[in-house]
This record gives sequence, C-alpha cells and structure tokens, in this order.
Amino acid sequence: MASFFGRFTSHSSSSSNSKPHAPSAPYAPSAPEVHGHEHSHGTASPYFSEHHPPQPYGSNYGAVSSYGSYGFPPGTPPEVIRSFQMVDRDGSGFIDENELQQALSSGYQRFSLRTVRLLIFLFRNPVDSSRMGPNEFTALWNCLGQWRGTFERYDRDRSGKIDALEMRDALYGLGYAVPSSVLELLISLYDDRSGRRVEFNFDSFVECGMIVKGLTEKFKEKDRHYTGSATLTYEDFMSTILPFLVSYS
Amino acid sequence: MASFFGRFTSHSSSSSNSKPHAPSAPYAPSAPEVHGHEHSHGTASPYFSEHHPPQPYGSNYGAVSSYGSYGFPPGTPPEVIRSFQMVDRDGSGFIDENELQQALSSGYQRFSLRTVRLLIFLFRNPVDSSRMGPNEFTALWNCLGQWRGTFERYDRDRSGKIDALEMRDALYGLGYAVPSSVLELLISLYDDRSGRRVEFNFDSFVECGMIVKGLTEKFKEKDRHYTGSATLTYEDFMSTILPFLVSYS
Repeated sequence: MASFFGRFTSHSSSSSNSKPHAPSAPYAPSAPEVHGHEHSHGTASPYFSEHHPPQPYGSNYGAVSSYGSYGFPPGTPPEVIRSFQMVDRDGSGFIDENELQQALSSGYQRFSLRTVRLLIFLFRNPVDSSRMGPNEFTALWNCLGQWRGTFERYDRDRSGKIDALEMRDALYGLGYAVPSSVLELLISLYDDRSGRRVEFNFDSFVECGMIVKGLTEKFKEKDRHYTGSATLTYEDFMSTILPFLVSYS
Repeated sequence: MASFFGRFTSHSSSSSNSKPHAPSAPYAPSAPEVHGHEHSHGTASPYFSEHHPPQPYGSNYGAVSSYGSYGFPPGTPPEVIRSFQMVDRDGSGFIDENELQQALSSGYQRFSLRTVRLLIFLFRNPVDSSRMGPNEFTALWNCLGQWRGTFERYDRDRSGKIDALEMRDALYGLGYAVPSSVLELLISLYDDRSGRRVEFNFDSFVECGMIVKGLTEKFKEKDRHYTGSATLTYEDFMSTILPFLVSYS
C-alpha cells in the first residue's frame, strides 16, 4: 500500500518553518489555546524553554488552499484531505487506531500501537474519543510535520535515530525545558537493560515527546501563572494521570 | 514446573485476616510507614475508605517461624523462603521480572509482564530497582495474599473474574475510596471496545489495584494532613507519573 508517511514528510518540509531550532507551539490539542501569546508577554516559565518564542497554534493553516469540504477547517492543505480520505477506507469520516497506525507506518518507519493510541488520546475528538475526525487529523498532521522537522535536525547522521542528549535538545527545541531528573526517568522508559545506549527512532521520539507535551499541558492547566507549582485535588491528580495509562492498554 | 501460586493462595488464606472486607494496610512499599496509626487517630481522609481501620504494615510478620536466613526478615514464614529459593533459579539472591512472572503465573492464572513490572516497581529494592530481594519479595507475598483474599470474597460465583462494581467494592475493601469519575477512567483501561462488559481477572485486578495504591501513596506523600489537595512542582508532578509509564515499556 502507498504510505502517507512520505507525503506527510514532504508536507512537513514544505510548510513548516525550516530555520534551525524553530519550535512548534506547545498547544493543547483538545482545546487549542494560543500559548505563544502568553509567552510573548515575557512571563518566565519554569517548564517551557524560552530561547525561541513558541509560534501560535495553527500557523500552518491557510497555507495552501481553501478546501473546506469533508469537515476540514478552511484552508486545510489538499494533501491532508487526500491522506485522510485514503486512510478512511470505510468512508466513515473518522479514522480509528488501526487506520491511523497504517497511515503512520511504512516499510522503514513503523508506529507502535502505543504511540498511535497516545496520539488519538492527545488529539482526541470531543464526540468520540476513540477515533479522529478531520479537525483532529489536521492538527495531528501539522504537529507531526513540525516534529519530523525537529527530529531530522537532530538526526545529523541521517541514521533515523537520535540519542538521549539529542532528545533533550529536541524537546527543548519543541518548547519543553524538562528537568534533568525527569529526562532521566523518561529515557529509562526506553532502556531495554541490555547495556546498550538508549536511542530514539521517530516513533519513540514522538511517543516520548507526546508524553511530555500531554503531561506538561495538564500541569499548566493547573498552573496558569507559570509559578512552577500547582495544587491538585486527589480526583484531579488521578484523573490527569490515568488517561496516560489508558493509551497503553 | 510447580507453580508457587497455589502455595501463595494457601498462605493467603491461612495467614491473612479472613473476616469479610478486612482491608490490607495502604502502606508504601519502598518506605514502609504505619499509616494505620494515622487512621486510628480519626483523621477523615478524602481518598481512603474509612469503614475498616487499615492494619499496620507487617501484620503478617512473625506469624509462623523465626527464619532469618537468606536475608529475610525474622519471622518470615518458611513457605515464603522456599518459594523465593525455588524461583531464584540462579541463586543470585534476587528475582528478576521473568522469574517473578513465572512465579506468579500458573496454568490457570497468568500474570502479564505489565503487572509484573508494576509490582517490581512498587515493591522496589532501593539498591537495584529492576530486581526483588528477600525483603521486597516477602512484602509482595504478604500483600498479594491479602489481595487474593479480597478478590475471592468479591468473586462470589468463583468464576475467576469480578465486574466493575465488584472492583469498586474490592478497592474500597482494600482501603481505597476512589471517586467515581476516577473509577470510570480506571475501568476504561480494560475496555476492549467490543461492547462486552469489562471484567477483571486476578492479574488485572492486581494491576488496577496497584495503580491505585501506587498513585494514592504518591499523592499522600504530598498531602500529609489528608486535606484532599496537594501542591506539586512541575518536577514532582512529572517524576511521580513517569515511573507508572516505565512499567509499561
């Protein structure tokens, strides 16, 4: 089958900002907020990197055309719509986890079901959280395009893998200043205990980054003034964490 | 191979408190604290059930014998020591995840590697977090014995499974009063989206319960006065959650 991964990559390079280290916006997929504006007020954030102002959500919209059919936002690039239609084989208007996995996987790059489920959760459709509609698919496409660009910038030898230090820099480039203790825990997720150095392919880079993105956004919802601390009830705490386990079931 | 699961079950019924709904202590495995004492002071807790006073940690110790060899705490029942020695095939004094999985699994009851890793993480050895020593094994044995008793009390038709409502009651019986919104999220972890009613075998009951136990204890470390709210830094928040993802890698 034709993979949309190649197209997706080419979309990424044509539409994303290609200057070195340009970060994507750390936006909340389910309820988009323009966090770039908050940053531009100069508030010091303890958990977002500050070396580049994040771009506002939706910077890729309106770049190519004015397609508005099939439930896509006006201005969605036609290749996004074509990919959605190719993947949505049953024409339901929604993409389930198997369809998304097929779409993201190709001969050289397979996305795990874990990552796919995490993506569907983080970019979830408010009506049916198990499937993606056109809006969620477009947001995911834009985000992965930017992340692919970031990954490729740090994969300097074009091996398809980055190491732990490059992961740290890549997360920083995406706008996440992860404390080193947290980074160590995160990297240990991918340590197979063989003694080999931990490396990340694009799949595990996306999974790792999405865990950071998702959890950071959840924290930020409780720390609106960027103090670095948040107060949560027991119910908040449990409800915040459990969905990140859901994606692994 | 002989499974220790049968022995473990019989140990459970002989040494755990067998009156209905007797809860195990909600203790922290890595740094045991006698939370039962806190409860007996009458503090109202928003996240522990109050209908039975939790027992202090280690109530099973000293029940049978005075073995102290092989690094076990004095008073460890001999069957625990025998089981450890049977499972520790290489005589290293430690049990790794594969050895523990073999020990916990039998023909009729297989423990998933997910659950096994979660158990090793929650009952972790401070020196080598990837393996269990005699102390951790004994604590796990005692805990699972109590949990087996709880599970069997709610599995009234002896089908080897309990349903979602019984899971709620069983968690309550173990000392965890989980808000219904949290319970729904937890149960959705095990929903295969086939439309079938979610049921829990002992493996998934233990996994589910250990997630609740582990996260609740982490929260409680930040809410020492049982106010129901806790303030966490971003680093705390991330570091608390990530190990629960580690066990799924």
